[in-house]
Amino acid sequence: MKCRQCQKSAVIKMERHNTSLCGGCFNLYVHDQVDRAITEQKMFDHGEQILVAISGGKDSLALWDVLIKLGYRTAGLHLDLGIEAYSEVSRKKVETFAASRGLDLIVHPYKEAYGLGVIEIAEETARPACSACGTMKRYHFNRIAMERGFPVVATGHNLDDEASRLLGNVLQWQEEYLEKQSPVLSDEGGTWARKVKPLFRLAEREIAAYSILNRIDYIVDECPMSKGAKMLLYKDILNRLEEASPGTKHKFYLGFLKRPRAATATAKPVDLHPCQSCGQPTPGAVCGFCRLMQRVTP
Amino acid sequence: MKCRQCQKSAVIKMERHNTSLCGGCFNLYVHDQVDRAITEQKMFDHGEQILVAISGGKDSLALWDVLIKLGYRTAGLHLDLGIEAYSEVSRKKVETFAASRGLDLIVHPYKEAYGLGVIEIAEETARPACSACGTMKRYHFNRIAMERGFPVVATGHNLDDEASRLLGNVLQWQEEYLEKQSPVLSDEGGTWARKVKPLFRLAEREIAAYSILNRIDYIVDECPMSKGAKMLLYKDILNRLEEASPGTKHKFYLGFLKRPRAATATAKPVDLHPCQSCGQPTPGAVCGFCRLMQRVTP
Repeated sequence: MKCRQCQKSAVIKMERHNTSLCGGCFNLYVHDQVDRAITEQKMFDHGEQILVAISGGKDSLALWDVLIKLGYRTAGLHLDLGIEAYSEVSRKKVETFAASRGLDLIVHPYKEAYGLGVIEIAEETARPACSACGTMKRYHFNRIAMERGFPVVATGHNLDDEASRLLGNVLQWQEEYLEKQSPVLSDEGGTWARKVKPLFRLAEREIAAYSILNRIDYIVDECPMSKGAKMLLYKDILNRLEEASPGTKHKFYLGFLKRPRAATATAKPVDLHPCQSCGQPTPGAVCGFCRLMQRVTP
Repeated sequence: MKCRQCQKSAVIKMERHNTSLCGGCFNLYVHDQVDRAITEQKMFDHGEQILVAISGGKDSLALWDVLIKLGYRTAGLHLDLGIEAYSEVSRKKVETFAASRGLDLIVHPYKEAYGLGVIEIAEETARPACSACGTMKRYHFNRIAMERGFPVVATGHNLDDEASRLLGNVLQWQEEYLEKQSPVLSDEGGTWARKVKPLFRLAEREIAAYSILNRIDYIVDECPMSKGAKMLLYKDILNRLEEASPGTKHKFYLGFLKRPRAATATAKPVDLHPCQSCGQPTPGAVCGFCRLMQRVTP
């Protein structure tokens, strides 16, 4: 198998692009896809400081690696969820990655901050683990970015993540979620940090290949709480469709982004106030995170 | 397993409704779902004559059976596609069903009318078989209905058909097809026959159960040309989702029907003229069917 660009020996075959590439050309392809995502979606520019949310998995570490190589100014943010061995290994991978490249890293350990890990917080509040974890992540990404002066938070969501989330939302026609599903969420005039997903054009297997090729040492295990999650079923189904018709995920997600919006989707401005408890912007009196934590600490 | 309605012995368990029913109560359920589809979607009323498209499969025969039992005035229309043994068996099942119940039946055999069956017509015109067949079916349903004074054509499309077609259209965000996917297509002020799908609330396995329970003798084989068709993959995928979350197909298709429409979906009136060749309404100079047949008969 030869590289279609330079005739060297290819390391990856990509059915959806009907091509095969060598290591060097594949790296250029990955950088180009990220660059294109950032530019076309107006995610950020070289003058802005980017806070990159780093879990320790392949996607977030590959994202950080690419952003550095594209010359962006970044710092990493790692939330230590306190899920025993899984979180210990994750944190170690992130710290080693940052130290070996001399990168700025902020670590926020839930157990030190709140005395509990995310599983205990979910249990005490009778919330599904993934739901409590999502509330806490969104809150900390935004709060830490705003407090430290980062206008943008970048996450490592890839094409498979976005397409499977879209499939889940479309199966239930949840218009309010559909309208929010974009690789860029506005900062609403500086009220929030902008949220961006620069890997949305890249398939999960492409990012795995990139990580291996660039010797990025990441945690391979999935979060122990994700087993049986619907998203895994949706990903599996999309993989089957992709196998039957290469390019299905890309067409599905990018076609969605280009589609005409529903008449009701005209911007409904949300009235935000400072949370009575923490001061962060919220549409209610108390923000979701503080409501969660109030149920933990009586 | 007991019937949830009357405590007799149940014959079917329906996970999506979290219920089990005996034969009598299941028949009532099926009739009720069809009645509800007809009424809620304003498909037709008891004053109108319905032309029911009958392939000889379980769906179309079950539809005809239910419409008769609900007291509608109907005639059947069978297109004999000329696909050798498959079409011979299909036609026999339809004729036997109609004769045993004393129902009006119109049979239109392609080989007698055009000298060729649908497979030969597709081959001669280099069209995929399902595509040529679709063009021919839509044409004959409408033409025969209009010529014989039927304001409505009913087809046996069920929930699985509609949900899998929707999945295919959504995966590619084909807005023009999405906007047309409805259980009722208007007659555009009498230009066309109204097209309706009274089985859209019923799952394929429910209709199979209804047919067996009511001793409807149908052709079990699928059309020999449908093997490997995308729709079978989509149906299989939806069955997997349904198994993981009973009610998925219903939520997906009925949620779609209720969703707000895209801003661009405001009615684009189509300018129709009589086809220069056959006189049937068409947006172009010559209708799709006549263009197809012109390539067959030089």
